[in-house]
Amino acid sequence: MTGLFVTFEGGDGVGKTTQAAALEQWLSGQGRRVVRTREPGGTEVGQRIRDIVLHHRGHIDPRAEALLYAADRAHHIATVVRPALVRGDVVIQDRYLDSSVAYQGAGRVLDPQQVRDLSLWATDGLLPDVTVLLDLDEASARRRLDADDKPYDRLEAEQAEFHTRVRAAFLALAGAEPDRFLVVDASLPVDQIAARVRDRVSARLG
Amino acid sequence: MTGLFVTFEGGDGVGKTTQAAALEQWLSGQGRRVVRTREPGGTEVGQRIRDIVLHHRGHIDPRAEALLYAADRAHHIATVVRPALVRGDVVIQDRYLDSSVAYQGAGRVLDPQQVRDLSLWATDGLLPDVTVLLDLDEASARRRLDADDKPYDRLEAEQAEFHTRVRAAFLALAGAEPDRFLVVDASLPVDQIAARVRDRVSARLG
Repeated sequence: MTGLFVTFEGGDGVGKTTQAAALEQWLSGQGRRVVRTREPGGTEVGQRIRDIVLHHRGHIDPRAEALLYAADRAHHIATVVRPALVRGDVVIQDRYLDSSVAYQGAGRVLDPQQVRDLSLWATDGLLPDVTVLLDLDEASARRRLDADDKPYDRLEAEQAEFHTRVRAAFLALAGAEPDRFLVVDASLPVDQIAARVRDRVSARLG
Repeated sequence: MTGLFVTFEGGDGVGKTTQAAALEQWLSGQGRRVVRTREPGGTEVGQRIRDIVLHHRGHIDPRAEALLYAADRAHHIATVVRPALVRGDVVIQDRYLDSSVAYQGAGRVLDPQQVRDLSLWATDGLLPDVTVLLDLDEASARRRLDADDKPYDRLEAEQAEFHTRVRAAFLALAGAEPDRFLVVDASLPVDQIAARVRDRVSARLG
């Protein structure tokens, strides 16, 4: 495979879409062929799976949910991402296996290592060349919650705690694979973040 | 769990439904509470998954397909089978993990051990107490193909070879777990088969 596989990770609202778009624009300007995609739901089969996970009325067993996400991933990687990488394209993807591991780990229902193994089996071991983790510090996360200028209700307190756990899980993953991960402070100006991402991606493109 | 989990396995048309019905009738007559179910598609979520696997137009990646079946299984076991076993019911199920292993093994696409591990992860390790393998010998299988009184076309020759591989896979599974499996010749009269199944199940019910 001669292409480059770049993934963006981080909590909701940290700017993944903005940064993916900026990187795509820059690479296209350099004459690179780019495929931009996302999980879950990056294929037609994936959208049907996503529809079950998000819109089924009633409980879905946590292992069934993890397996449905892994099925979406298997099909997406096999039919969209690998063919693009074989053609030599750059694939820019919003969320990949690190999201599954971080969210499941934070959700405390399933063992994160098992969730990772499941994704690796689904994708026949495909890891990204570059993973950009947009990391939002506690202060900024708190400011977003405080923007409403109301005391925390129980749900908001839980959300803050959940954010903390997801963030810690992402940082632990980045710490374990420093060559793959680029961790960027998501509270920096958009252009500064984009420049750091470009630097890392150009270095990998050589 | 105080119930008993009985599964019926074997190729298409060997009489699983007939034997499951006979066992249910006998157990109900003994005053036992029985849940009869099947995979895939034994739950509402499972029917939506089955609809994707069977009716999606176009290719589905083999790992995605295996993961979808495992998701169906995870949800079905967690929401239907385990609760019934906890209540002390007898669960009679048409097809379970041995079918996945035998068919995937015969399909030669995925590693059978990996398919088994996936199912065991999906179900948190639940194995049946009794698995009845209705085994159809070569001669009977050939008679069914010959019933049309035409020379084999390529597809029928392939079907015969596929049947042989599925059968061998089921028999290998039974050989590896003789305590769990009861292998019965599916060409015997229905009543004789039913009697052998009853004997094994009553012995387990004690």
